[in-house]
Amino acid sequence: MKLRRSERMVVISNYLINNPYKLTSLNTFATKYEAAKSSISEDIAIIKKAFEESNIGEIETLTGASGGVIFTPSISEEEARAIVQDLCQRLSENNRILPGGYIYLSDLLSTPKILQNIGRIIANAFKGQKIDAVMTVATKGVPLANAVANILNVPFVIVRRDLKITEGSTVSVNYASASSDRIEKMFLSKRSLRPNSRVLIVDDFLKGGGTITGMISLLSEFDSHLVGVAVFAENAKEEREDMIYKSLLKVSEIDVKNNKVVVEVGNIFND
Amino acid sequence: MKLRRSERMVVISNYLINNPYKLTSLNTFATKYEAAKSSISEDIAIIKKAFEESNIGEIETLTGASGGVIFTPSISEEEARAIVQDLCQRLSENNRILPGGYIYLSDLLSTPKILQNIGRIIANAFKGQKIDAVMTVATKGVPLANAVANILNVPFVIVRRDLKITEGSTVSVNYASASSDRIEKMFLSKRSLRPNSRVLIVDDFLKGGGTITGMISLLSEFDSHLVGVAVFAENAKEEREDMIYKSLLKVSEIDVKNNKVVVEVGNIFND
Repeated sequence: MKLRRSERMVVISNYLINNPYKLTSLNTFATKYEAAKSSISEDIAIIKKAFEESNIGEIETLTGASGGVIFTPSISEEEARAIVQDLCQRLSENNRILPGGYIYLSDLLSTPKILQNIGRIIANAFKGQKIDAVMTVATKGVPLANAVANILNVPFVIVRRDLKITEGSTVSVNYASASSDRIEKMFLSKRSLRPNSRVLIVDDFLKGGGTITGMISLLSEFDSHLVGVAVFAENAKEEREDMIYKSLLKVSEIDVKNNKVVVEVGNIFND
Repeated sequence: MKLRRSERMVVISNYLINNPYKLTSLNTFATKYEAAKSSISEDIAIIKKAFEESNIGEIETLTGASGGVIFTPSISEEEARAIVQDLCQRLSENNRILPGGYIYLSDLLSTPKILQNIGRIIANAFKGQKIDAVMTVATKGVPLANAVANILNVPFVIVRRDLKITEGSTVSVNYASASSDRIEKMFLSKRSLRPNSRVLIVDDFLKGGGTITGMISLLSEFDSHLVGVAVFAENAKEEREDMIYKSLLKVSEIDVKNNKVVVEVGNIFND
């Protein structure tokens, strides 16, 4: 397909945006758009400048026989902070308090634009670290893990609290559930994670940390390694095992009687 | 932020790709990139041509005070067929058969690139129809619904088979579960779907159809309307209530003894 330069740049931009973290040789574009490799190289230089000036992401060009171009999405701290501030406000809406002092989050975690932004912020917080898979626990964590995995262009892995016949053989571990005050089991399909994977754990809401501790112990069952933990929101009041994690939001008060939630920015922008 | 024309086109393309189905006024771009509205208009014309020639999608320009530009993602039948053919082959791999004659799908439904492509194909099959939300049932359907919702830029709604305290008030219906041969319950949080929504139902695997019939009856409890049903794969052998749906794949044989699965293209390209 032969395109004009300006059209070619639009189409190559689209490709890079939809294929983050993937190395693509310039020859692939040259062949596809019937252009000289040097022209493609110039196109990439312009796209790189535009992406970097607008904080869409970075483009790296590797030279040599196995060379090519890789797009790494990013987000400016300014944009990320504005998104998190907006989420703080949305989470503080007084109609979110449920009986038992829980907070209704499902609307936020099922809106593509919000998920995409959360994914960009979390992925950016672990930029430069090799990540092979994103792990979460069903059901609430799934869209979050999916969003982060979309940006990193790696598979996500869903740990379950129940045994499903459609998962085949599973490995299980016990964990201490804060919400039920009991020891529960969690399961991961044997084929869902390769040994020696480097894994980012993502979850929606961090309370006691039992679920995340459970997932970390699953990692060792799969001879895999923890890169980090990121949560959408944490409960500031909760006693928690010693754990390193990044949070977008910190819920510092849930006042059921007065129907009030106090939400602050989490620790994701620290250091 | 002032950019050169070529850079501006790259940045506007990125915006449109990440904001499908959203009307954005040309003034928004003109202000943001300090350019004349007429220049933005020319940029859009080039992007439109590039997107259409490469089957990335359509760009519609609405004139007048409330006018602007809307990007609708699409996919060529050629590309869609190639993707579905590839999925046919992946599903036919003989190591997918699980005890009980189930097929392991989780790896496909947790790979972002595959999900994105499935989302594009399903969304494209319902193009031109007004859709307010995508509905599915936990857990396997979630990444699929998420993928379709990403393309349509609408929220997705997760029906559950168990009651969760973090969902607040729920509405429940009974459904006939083919896998357990029993009447089961499914639940949907009251606040997750607005009345009069037009809903696309998505699921991973269609057997007896009980789950989907259940979701359809939930729709009427929410005074909402069914736009259509799309499934990743259907079991061709299964007796099924009279139901209209689109399927990407059709599993016509699962031979547990010889470890063989026969998979064909579903009905999504018929019409």
